[in-house]
Amino acid sequence: MGYGLIQTTGQQLKLIQYGVIHLSKYTGHELKLKKIFERVLNLIVEYVPDEVALEAPFYGKNIQSMLKLGRAQGVAMAAALSREIPITEYAPKKVKQSVTGNGNASKEQVAAMLQTLLGIKEAPKLLDATDALAVALCHHFQGGKTQKTSKSWGAFLSENPGRVK
Amino acid sequence: MGYGLIQTTGQQLKLIQYGVIHLSKYTGHELKLKKIFERVLNLIVEYVPDEVALEAPFYGKNIQSMLKLGRAQGVAMAAALSREIPITEYAPKKVKQSVTGNGNASKEQVAAMLQTLLGIKEAPKLLDATDALAVALCHHFQGGKTQKTSKSWGAFLSENPGRVK
Repeated sequence: MGYGLIQTTGQQLKLIQYGVIHLSKYTGHELKLKKIFERVLNLIVEYVPDEVALEAPFYGKNIQSMLKLGRAQGVAMAAALSREIPITEYAPKKVKQSVTGNGNASKEQVAAMLQTLLGIKEAPKLLDATDALAVALCHHFQGGKTQKTSKSWGAFLSENPGRVK
Repeated sequence: MGYGLIQTTGQQLKLIQYGVIHLSKYTGHELKLKKIFERVLNLIVEYVPDEVALEAPFYGKNIQSMLKLGRAQGVAMAAALSREIPITEYAPKKVKQSVTGNGNASKEQVAAMLQTLLGIKEAPKLLDATDALAVALCHHFQGGKTQKTSKSWGAFLSENPGRVK
């Protein structure tokens, strides 16, 4: 599961943080969900984002994987909901389209565009993390609600529980 | 979505509370999830259950409904996980089998058996609520972890987010 945080001031973009939550070391579905909830809540407490955006696939390999994905998204969403932070969802194609201009762009193409847009110097190794940043950027390009007058961080968090392993 | 709480002392059973969370009045998927999270968290804060059990279907009508169900379960589970309460899952057939002796029992048969086992006087109108109580009973019959020495409530909460409307 990847996450990415950006701060926006008008049209100015600033990368705050991005990374992945490694879940394979945890055995048991319940423990994985607990870790997702804790990590997302910690990010929210630390960075106090105004908005959360997430990628919502509209299809899946099978019924069971969709239930698991739904649960992973659910616990991440609960962390945001518990702090009254609004959530917006985007389809994967919409995210790619918004960031690269091509709804069928590869993960590598998305990562390359993010390097340019956010001034990331090293080539990001974690494509789940850049995928998550792409969702945050997409939300910004779509107008978000980030233009509102607010004294809190202009950052917003983007999660990508579609990458739960 | 139904919920039910029972208190167990050895083999003695006591009905604490049961009911449903009506979600149809809330518009928007996000608001429904928020209400589930809040209501389940409120129940947990009020009754401090030792254990949570939930019904986990292993099939569904379609991919999209399973994603929604997963999210509903996810936010409910997050409420329990945030309070370090262990969660156990049971398949619907297992719940029916455990409570009535028949894995294919109807909701009405389950409700009738609960009336007997828990001494409910009036015929319960809300079958989602009795379904949830059945999960709690099933967890008890399966041994649960309710025999441990604990000064907190012996109650445990059973959720049934499979009934999200």
